[in-house]
Amino acid sequence: MRAYNFSAGPATLPEPVLRQAAEEMLDWRGLGASVVEVSHRGAEFVAMAAEVEADLRTLLAVPDDYAMLFTAGGATTLQALLPLNLASPGQAACYALTGHWGKTAVKQAKPYVSVHVSADGEADGYRDIPPPSEWTLAPGAAYLHLTANETIHGVEFRDMEPVFARLSRADAAGVPLVADFSSSVASEPVDVSRYGAIYGGAQKNLGPVGISFLAIRRDLLEREGQPRADIFDLRSHAAKESMLNTPPTWNWYLLGLTVKWMLAEGGTAEFARRNARKAALLYDAIDGSGGFYRNEVAHAVRSRMNVPFFLRDEALDKAFLAESKAEGMIGLKGHRALGGMRASIYNAMPEAGVQALAGFMRDFARRHG
Amino acid sequence: MRAYNFSAGPATLPEPVLRQAAEEMLDWRGLGASVVEVSHRGAEFVAMAAEVEADLRTLLAVPDDYAMLFTAGGATTLQALLPLNLASPGQAACYALTGHWGKTAVKQAKPYVSVHVSADGEADGYRDIPPPSEWTLAPGAAYLHLTANETIHGVEFRDMEPVFARLSRADAAGVPLVADFSSSVASEPVDVSRYGAIYGGAQKNLGPVGISFLAIRRDLLEREGQPRADIFDLRSHAAKESMLNTPPTWNWYLLGLTVKWMLAEGGTAEFARRNARKAALLYDAIDGSGGFYRNEVAHAVRSRMNVPFFLRDEALDKAFLAESKAEGMIGLKGHRALGGMRASIYNAMPEAGVQALAGFMRDFARRHG
Repeated sequence: MRAYNFSAGPATLPEPVLRQAAEEMLDWRGLGASVVEVSHRGAEFVAMAAEVEADLRTLLAVPDDYAMLFTAGGATTLQALLPLNLASPGQAACYALTGHWGKTAVKQAKPYVSVHVSADGEADGYRDIPPPSEWTLAPGAAYLHLTANETIHGVEFRDMEPVFARLSRADAAGVPLVADFSSSVASEPVDVSRYGAIYGGAQKNLGPVGISFLAIRRDLLEREGQPRADIFDLRSHAAKESMLNTPPTWNWYLLGLTVKWMLAEGGTAEFARRNARKAALLYDAIDGSGGFYRNEVAHAVRSRMNVPFFLRDEALDKAFLAESKAEGMIGLKGHRALGGMRASIYNAMPEAGVQALAGFMRDFARRHG
Repeated sequence: MRAYNFSAGPATLPEPVLRQAAEEMLDWRGLGASVVEVSHRGAEFVAMAAEVEADLRTLLAVPDDYAMLFTAGGATTLQALLPLNLASPGQAACYALTGHWGKTAVKQAKPYVSVHVSADGEADGYRDIPPPSEWTLAPGAAYLHLTANETIHGVEFRDMEPVFARLSRADAAGVPLVADFSSSVASEPVDVSRYGAIYGGAQKNLGPVGISFLAIRRDLLEREGQPRADIFDLRSHAAKESMLNTPPTWNWYLLGLTVKWMLAEGGTAEFARRNARKAALLYDAIDGSGGFYRNEVAHAVRSRMNVPFFLRDEALDKAFLAESKAEGMIGLKGHRALGGMRASIYNAMPEAGVQALAGFMRDFARRHG
């Protein structure tokens, strides 16, 4: 019996994807072996890998002058590799902080660059995004980094135009925008050409943890960067088409199945519609609860992917988690940094799951309000 | 229909492991979700992760004063992290080269340390191991690195005593031995206490690619190392029990199933016996072919895991690969660096598979000799 899994990542995956993975576990494409057992240099895997890259390029509408890389591990590793590759030692790099993950990015970058914090919503508890028109830039910055959607704080850039406008001012000339899209990639159409690079871990919208994606404008890869091992050199990964060393093959495969599922369902335009409906359902249940539930994020930047909320009476938290679990809904416990609840409603979460949660929330409030 | 898969890694896995993974793909431990979908912070995954660590410690007999880490990605990443963490900038580090992967380790280390090549078998085509008594050490070296088994060249340290003896000399005082065990871990009992660290990718004997292991003496983690991102700091990984960031959960799970299978089969002592029989079968087929097949490695250092061999008439290579594939044996093509054939016969390769291959080789030689 499948539960509705609201986990923030690793997160729910499309059931047809898991069914196919189970069916092919002992014999993939008639080879007599699982995809996790065959050589990444073999014709079958190489063909599959190229197909996955092409499919992800299609899904995300990645322009041809961008390299599309897959890397082992998570976004945190890329948060170290980006300054190592895009900035010279000690060069300035700008970070706009709108939640926990932006701070993690800064932590990884600090040994390599002079971090300039362009904006920081921490004083406000990351409940809103400081106006981009007021963001400051450091002279000669290697890039400006932001987090498209903050998974823990539930804060998302819903309108990127003010950011692009800020970057069109004279002091930002030539400063590329680098964005962590870990928890919102493929949730709606994005104009990748406005970014120098977008990246993220796969474990929310794209598939399993253990593999990350990076779409990066090729001219940025020509930067000298700083001394680093070959395995940390994005140029080397690009030259070897993400097979500089043995890649996480099964993760790549499952990512591929997930991307194919999204394309078959209608792509990012269709998921944008579904995600808007799902988010509205949940925020309506919260806002219409007469204060029994509350979400503290400014409405204009509320995340469509991660909905943190609090019960007015936190003594009811345990009952909320136990009763929702008994009704087949799991993964609702909030991140330890915030407490309360969090419902993550990525592309693979069906609308029926969100309807079930909203219905449960109304019922729970009626019984305990 | 399962083939006998002689791929060098990714490699064949135990069929019961794959069956269990398939069966649990939609519902793991009654959670209503796959292990790849649930939070790595959830009680179920945390318990499983701890169990895997304990099982691997048991399998490898890792002493208590060693940290046991799992890292995302492959051994190449650890080949960069080890100098970053164990050596100060520009400090000497020694490398004994017995094949391709030792050279890769040097490549990753060069930006961080002053590499001293203690021995290099390249002039001899890596067909033998230079006598450890003649290895040179650099004064003040951070460590001595070697590759326990060279996957491509099929060269394995079959007797470590001369290496330990070399390290007991005065000029090696305090120099820990660091060994890449990617392709021979768990293939026989190893006295881990003689090493400062052993490490490797999982994708040969331990499970799927995308996760690596590192058993390291805890006092070595106290070394200052050099400036690095937190995600590259092994102390941080140790402090968070390999969950500094989201780990490759499914890979960790499959590694765990594979380790449990090895323990149930009798552990490293039993696999040492099986691997000795399997290797003898294959080398006998080669040596007894009257020159139709040849393996060029010195007998005393022939690998029990990877058996590269050449046909006298390389014009027959294609027929050998096609006919063996038709009989259900795959992954026999040699590495492009050497050409010819290579049979990898890791723990999960059943003796019946090696018997089938040896039989096929005799038959092929009879028909084409």
